[in-house]
Amino acid sequence: MAPVGSQRRGSVRISTERLIMDLKEKALELHREWNGKLDTVPKMDISTREDLALAYTPGVAEPCKVIAKEPAAVYEYTQKANTIAVVSDGSAVLGLGNIGPLAAMPVMEGKCALFKSFGDVNAVPICLDTQDVDEIVETVIRIAPAFGGINLEDISAPRCFEVERRLIEALDIPVFHDDQHGTAIVVLSGVINALRLTGKKKEDCRVVVNGAGSAGIAIAKLLLTYGFKHLTLVDRCGIISSRSEGINEAQRAMLATTNLDDVDGTLADALKGADIFIGVSAPNIVSEEMVASMADDAILFAMANPDPEILPDAAKRAGARVVGTGRSDFPNQINNVVAFPGIFKGALAARATRITEEMKLAAAEALAALVSDEELCEDFIMPEPFDPRAVDAVAHAVEAAV
Amino acid sequence: MAPVGSQRRGSVRISTERLIMDLKEKALELHREWNGKLDTVPKMDISTREDLALAYTPGVAEPCKVIAKEPAAVYEYTQKANTIAVVSDGSAVLGLGNIGPLAAMPVMEGKCALFKSFGDVNAVPICLDTQDVDEIVETVIRIAPAFGGINLEDISAPRCFEVERRLIEALDIPVFHDDQHGTAIVVLSGVINALRLTGKKKEDCRVVVNGAGSAGIAIAKLLLTYGFKHLTLVDRCGIISSRSEGINEAQRAMLATTNLDDVDGTLADALKGADIFIGVSAPNIVSEEMVASMADDAILFAMANPDPEILPDAAKRAGARVVGTGRSDFPNQINNVVAFPGIFKGALAARATRITEEMKLAAAEALAALVSDEELCEDFIMPEPFDPRAVDAVAHAVEAAV
Repeated sequence: MAPVGSQRRGSVRISTERLIMDLKEKALELHREWNGKLDTVPKMDISTREDLALAYTPGVAEPCKVIAKEPAAVYEYTQKANTIAVVSDGSAVLGLGNIGPLAAMPVMEGKCALFKSFGDVNAVPICLDTQDVDEIVETVIRIAPAFGGINLEDISAPRCFEVERRLIEALDIPVFHDDQHGTAIVVLSGVINALRLTGKKKEDCRVVVNGAGSAGIAIAKLLLTYGFKHLTLVDRCGIISSRSEGINEAQRAMLATTNLDDVDGTLADALKGADIFIGVSAPNIVSEEMVASMADDAILFAMANPDPEILPDAAKRAGARVVGTGRSDFPNQINNVVAFPGIFKGALAARATRITEEMKLAAAEALAALVSDEELCEDFIMPEPFDPRAVDAVAHAVEAAV
Repeated sequence: MAPVGSQRRGSVRISTERLIMDLKEKALELHREWNGKLDTVPKMDISTREDLALAYTPGVAEPCKVIAKEPAAVYEYTQKANTIAVVSDGSAVLGLGNIGPLAAMPVMEGKCALFKSFGDVNAVPICLDTQDVDEIVETVIRIAPAFGGINLEDISAPRCFEVERRLIEALDIPVFHDDQHGTAIVVLSGVINALRLTGKKKEDCRVVVNGAGSAGIAIAKLLLTYGFKHLTLVDRCGIISSRSEGINEAQRAMLATTNLDDVDGTLADALKGADIFIGVSAPNIVSEEMVASMADDAILFAMANPDPEILPDAAKRAGARVVGTGRSDFPNQINNVVAFPGIFKGALAARATRITEEMKLAAAEALAALVSDEELCEDFIMPEPFDPRAVDAVAHAVEAAV
């Protein structure tokens, strides 16, 4: 694939824009051709009366009777063993915002296609015609019998926190908001390898997470769980402190473990002397001066889409040692696809009832370990999105952590 | 396949029972092996960065934006064009009764497999963890965005009537309770051909429908819509009349168009002089004497499972001319599978918002017409369940009736 961005100017820039136009048109054309990205395909041939009698009536009554007596047998006889629902209310779709459940469908179908392609996990898109937290929660609880797990997707913050918390409490199958935890796991795996490379110690590092939405808060939480001590959350209005106004409950709750000196200030203030910058915020908001003010061997994960908080070459010029982005045309792409298929593959294989913090840490460590000491360098701290080892490495780590 | 029943006694009977045991064991074993009958399979290969950019981000944003602007485009760019939900609350599963949503899963998966195998319609099993009518209705409304149609399945009467009525009113996609209307369509197609064979006129026929649950009421309604005038509904307590006690709202409503002389009596009373018996009730409750009391060229559809209301040879001995059952080991099997895949295939192709009475009549007539004048005889009034012409005949009829 041709790069969808460019670091140069002039005629090359025009040609890149043309490539982006081509990609958009091709994507639209293909979506029209596919007319839905998934087929529900029977695992058996049904072309004789005996086939029908075995897969449907009267034979189907037998597994029904077994499950009626012993509900846990549903995992033995039905799709619940290996099928999840990908659930969205369409309130925070990609960078497009609140476009609603119908317009969210192409994304949810795509996510399901990735679950199957990468993890061999069957996945069904469910787009909800409600954005009310109570209604989302009760609806997912009611459709849960058919599914072995629930992947929440593109639900806006702070509603997503409550939706996930209540579903985890109510259901005995794993519930996982990928925008939060998938991102957090992949970021942590990159951070682990950046520490390997730079020799920095997690206990001593000063970390700044810019963007205190669902991904930012989940990243902050997982980094703290991993063992980071000094972490500052920054949002549009600056460093989140006890004096911040207009912050939500989830952001306020983070003050118990972040910004322990309870300082105020701008992003530039936060970055002075910081070791690690994690951006899930907006394009071009980190300047070279800010990077220059960071500690030696600074690590930056600038994941704003489509343009990062700072371009890798600019960050490097200003002294950064390791830079990752969300883009495939720069080194160190941070892409959830290395995590979520394996997370559910492992959780389903283990019949886990929850995705625990231990499982998330184990997944991040397994991903980090895929980069050997020989391979590890500034431009290669993350397994590639198509690394065929990623899904099983994550799945096994998750399974072992149950 | 070996016959799963037997009309003879002695050693053959024992051997038949052994075959049934074998079938049950094999069905259980296969269900364990399949571990879910469906795979959700992506229509595209996702093995390069370009694939990912087209099927997922960033390309997927394009169809999202189009749908956000013009919601009807969801049919052009997503699975809604050809995917339905098969929804049950597990309250009336096969002959097993109220076994709940988990135990209903093998049936719903099987139904989905049939939709795909016979009609090339993608279908997703949804088993609801509620049996409350309000909750079922609101849940289905909320998950509807992803689907182009809703097939209700194995929901007990009379709740199923209200669930269906309210969903039809609320949604702009077809909602179809197959236990009611699929059965009614297939029965009507058989009745049409029995009339062709016997020369009876629908206006003059006296029809008895025994069993006033969801299927019985739907059959009665469709026969009346088709043009039958004299129809009596019979339930466990006898002929349903204005004096019947303990009947539900749906049964009471049928008094406006059935039992017009408002008589009371037993099933035996109802059958005296009747032309057509339709049984969706219980095994062995029609005697040879009752059949002998019917009009000449009597037509019996004895569909109780697993054993019919009367066995075909007994009915024939007592003077019946045409006998159909639900079983594959007797002639004239009445099996919904010739109808439901084509119903949704046609409705989806036409983007119908409802399944109308006209569409049901057209489907029944199309099925009946598949049996040529040359083929038509006492033992062949129905297309076989595996007749490859059935699905498209029904689909085209439904599409043309929109």
